[in-house]
Amino acid sequence: MRRLLSGQGASRGSALGRARVRLPHALDVAEERIEAGEVEAELERLHAAIDVVRGEMHALRDRLHGALAHEVGEFLDLHALLLDDPELLAGLDELIRTGRYAADYALRLQRDRIAAVFAGMDDAYLRSRIDDIDQVVGRIHAALHRRAADLQGIAGDILVTDSVAPSELAQLHAQGVMAVVTSGGSPLSHSAILARSLHLPLVIGAAHVLQKVNDGDVLAVDGGSGLVILEPNADDLRDHRARVQEYARERKQLHRLRREPTRTVDGVDIKLWANAESREDVAEAHAQGAAGVGLYRTEFLFMHRPPELRRTLPDEEEQFRAYRDLVLGMTGRTVTIRTLDIGADKADESGLALTGEPNPALGLRGVRLSLSRTDLFRTQLRAILRATGYGPVRILVPMVSGREEMLAVRALTRDVQRELREQGHAIAESVPIGAMIEVPSAAIALQTFIAETDFLSIGTNDLVQYLLAADRTNEALGDLYSPLHPAVLRLIYDVIRAARTHRKPLAVCGEIAGDPMFAPVLLALGLEEFSLHPGTLLEVRRAVRALDHSALRARAATLLRARDRAGIERWLARVAV
Amino acid sequence: MRRLLSGQGASRGSALGRARVRLPHALDVAEERIEAGEVEAELERLHAAIDVVRGEMHALRDRLHGALAHEVGEFLDLHALLLDDPELLAGLDELIRTGRYAADYALRLQRDRIAAVFAGMDDAYLRSRIDDIDQVVGRIHAALHRRAADLQGIAGDILVTDSVAPSELAQLHAQGVMAVVTSGGSPLSHSAILARSLHLPLVIGAAHVLQKVNDGDVLAVDGGSGLVILEPNADDLRDHRARVQEYARERKQLHRLRREPTRTVDGVDIKLWANAESREDVAEAHAQGAAGVGLYRTEFLFMHRPPELRRTLPDEEEQFRAYRDLVLGMTGRTVTIRTLDIGADKADESGLALTGEPNPALGLRGVRLSLSRTDLFRTQLRAILRATGYGPVRILVPMVSGREEMLAVRALTRDVQRELREQGHAIAESVPIGAMIEVPSAAIALQTFIAETDFLSIGTNDLVQYLLAADRTNEALGDLYSPLHPAVLRLIYDVIRAARTHRKPLAVCGEIAGDPMFAPVLLALGLEEFSLHPGTLLEVRRAVRALDHSALRARAATLLRARDRAGIERWLARVAV
Repeated sequence: MRRLLSGQGASRGSALGRARVRLPHALDVAEERIEAGEVEAELERLHAAIDVVRGEMHALRDRLHGALAHEVGEFLDLHALLLDDPELLAGLDELIRTGRYAADYALRLQRDRIAAVFAGMDDAYLRSRIDDIDQVVGRIHAALHRRAADLQGIAGDILVTDSVAPSELAQLHAQGVMAVVTSGGSPLSHSAILARSLHLPLVIGAAHVLQKVNDGDVLAVDGGSGLVILEPNADDLRDHRARVQEYARERKQLHRLRREPTRTVDGVDIKLWANAESREDVAEAHAQGAAGVGLYRTEFLFMHRPPELRRTLPDEEEQFRAYRDLVLGMTGRTVTIRTLDIGADKADESGLALTGEPNPALGLRGVRLSLSRTDLFRTQLRAILRATGYGPVRILVPMVSGREEMLAVRALTRDVQRELREQGHAIAESVPIGAMIEVPSAAIALQTFIAETDFLSIGTNDLVQYLLAADRTNEALGDLYSPLHPAVLRLIYDVIRAARTHRKPLAVCGEIAGDPMFAPVLLALGLEEFSLHPGTLLEVRRAVRALDHSALRARAATLLRARDRAGIERWLARVAV
Repeated sequence: MRRLLSGQGASRGSALGRARVRLPHALDVAEERIEAGEVEAELERLHAAIDVVRGEMHALRDRLHGALAHEVGEFLDLHALLLDDPELLAGLDELIRTGRYAADYALRLQRDRIAAVFAGMDDAYLRSRIDDIDQVVGRIHAALHRRAADLQGIAGDILVTDSVAPSELAQLHAQGVMAVVTSGGSPLSHSAILARSLHLPLVIGAAHVLQKVNDGDVLAVDGGSGLVILEPNADDLRDHRARVQEYARERKQLHRLRREPTRTVDGVDIKLWANAESREDVAEAHAQGAAGVGLYRTEFLFMHRPPELRRTLPDEEEQFRAYRDLVLGMTGRTVTIRTLDIGADKADESGLALTGEPNPALGLRGVRLSLSRTDLFRTQLRAILRATGYGPVRILVPMVSGREEMLAVRALTRDVQRELREQGHAIAESVPIGAMIEVPSAAIALQTFIAETDFLSIGTNDLVQYLLAADRTNEALGDLYSPLHPAVLRLIYDVIRAARTHRKPLAVCGEIAGDPMFAPVLLALGLEEFSLHPGTLLEVRRAVRALDHSALRARAATLLRARDRAGIERWLARVAV
């Protein structure tokens, strides 16, 4: 039967498809008892889950080959062994049979019993073995809770769930999900930002959707208006087709903006740079009229190595060719190359031998790594500087925390420039060197080293993470990670003012720069350069062209007086076009 | 032969003892080749190291007992198996014999080969198995580099080394090391701060000490003057005894300060609170005339459980008794109880079932955990509020990032107060609730929620860590973690000013509050309350009594103009008494 279940539109686009319902399950397993009559069914459920895991491990084992499959296999076998461990299994059965615990809770109790033994060990090595138990227990738990809508085979379907984690969205999108409908959420959450950048239709706050929709029901979803229709009728389908055409028209109009300036209603020109990693990004940036490349991430060269070069480092020639091609691809528009920003959490995919760190986000990353491995850094600087012979290049330094690091980078660059000239390379007379503003101390103490920079780029993704002490990939933190915090806006505002005073070009290059919904905030704070993925460049251009710069600037003071996220959201709602 | 090898005094105290020399070894294993004639010795060295590790693992195995030793043993056996793996060993021997690589580098190459196989796996589970390889390889590497001065049996000796990590100092001190002499270092480094708080004599910057001193040489070291004498003669020994007596006299004089006020030369009274965790701390705080307890860390109750209660949580009664005894122990002086601040990195030692986080320092900690587990939080609030019937108590909330959290804590506290009164508990009419200022966003946006706080406490340890995005336990970052950054001083200054404007009591409770060397900085910034471990309370009192408050305040502007750490150190050198 047709039903209207609308929520709030969070990412535009219309979809028609079958629902895949994923019911929430509590992260904390609460104590849950079962009836005597349910014991056998529960035991069966548990053993079915263990069988599934056993099957998965065997499948993994079979995929192994090559010289060292031997060692790899050992670990798998060990974990498989744990699955068959009579003590573990008997304990679980006992807990279900005699204790009348639900399988989940029995699993948790047994895990805790084992972990308690490990935790009692003096030796850190033994204590760390808890991880293996947790891996096995986690696999069983996941198998017990294989949710109604497994991510596999979701292509063409519409996911209906309570909330969706940012980390899931990209995967869902890659798997071909048509749209996502959630019962909770906020249009300014990290997930909503990602959905918009992926052009994945998203409706949030569809309150009763989980109670009303069943797996396989047909839904018509519109991420623009927030409309969700269960079992749409003929009229609804007609409307849906009309909306699809409307979005297609919209995209066509958007396409026409490629050659238009990014100018506000009152005639202020805004510069849109592109963030680019691949050849395709560069081509797209070029086609859509980006002012240049505002952020070229060189990690790509270090991490995504061809198979035969895995765990080796790109040498000067390889890097030089990549940077030169980038410069040539932009045909005279400036490209901004960020020096290596890789940490211990990513280093395993590269040829860098970095050891594990307890908090890689607070570790030896960016310019810290470059200055501690000047051999690598010199190679990269040589490659970048050699590319300056082919067109305008700027060097952007990540993770700067203060003056000392900028001075060290400048000194090293001068030295490498001298060396290259002596070796007869035709490099540019000078190259602008800028600082990423993403470590809070750099934003706060910008005055102490702004003179040592030629330009600035605020990396809001990391800046927000450090300012709020909130890992943006940590789902347990929920919505804590958000650029809409008064401290974030205040600091961005201060940095923009300092840049203006010292006449240093300044861009923002975090996710918020690529989201049209944040454009009013950034313009109000005084920003005039955005660096964003080319995939959303035209949308931001369209948004900017509908905004009144001086009106927004006049409301900056009100924005900066907001006391919390709700206050900032109210401000945004008032200025929204 | 007698030699003078002096450096700079960094932590007062004199020591006479035998040297234990620890030579630096490179963290990065560089490619190193050996001569044909060295091959056999190198192979022997490698296999000796492997034997040592094998022995360690067996010893660990033997220490296992109890019901689940079974599973634990499996993992150990697996790693032992790796040690005996013919492929791994043959590969290593081959690299040394044919490749003529030094054992370290061969180990690194072999590790990388294995890791490359793992890294090529699609499955995250398999990729994570690299950790096991790294554990085993790490153990062999450590055994190869068992440094000249192993930490075992160092009691009574003087450690001579290039640098000493903060994490090592407490261990060295516990093991009875008499003094530490380093060739590098700074008197304001994190290690030097810790040495002073441990009263462990430390001389830094003794440039040639590593070349001149051999294991077993006798040294006379004075951490006050920086004097280091190799093979001291009769006169030196007399001087040493005189210095020891002098320090004893000093301590006696310090003891007399117990009943003196903490008043600057120009008559400004400074409040010294004690940080306390144990009954002994409370007694010491009381004896030394602390104004009260400025920081009582409740993690202690959750983590250091008696063996029979391991991995259980303290219930309301147990917590209540601990808080009540604390209040009674301070006989009417105010105690400040900080609500639970535990993260996923520490939770395994407690009964909290938290899962691993990639960056626990940026994770579900402090008030975030409390607000996500209100069952636990209500229990803690009930216990604290019940203790308010026995004397003055303040509640301090850790990891506040903004207004929403303070409002939520206040609402919950009101609710629990109402509940307790209804149940007939005699609790105080009101209890001050304060915020830790340690998340940068809370410091920057303090104005947005200062009205919701009754007092404030700046946690500089975490604040510095987040501001600089530098994990203070990460040794690879060297001296990057430092409170002497212009951004840190600026932010502390801003917080102090805001607190003054809104008449909110404000203390600093990080390590710098307990270090007399930082007292001039904190007074200059306007601080009037320090919260510190009772072990250094009298030294800070002595320092404050020698400082001129108004003269320091007059120099605050100069301090805030410093552009980098060197500038701040110069300022400190000029004002030092």
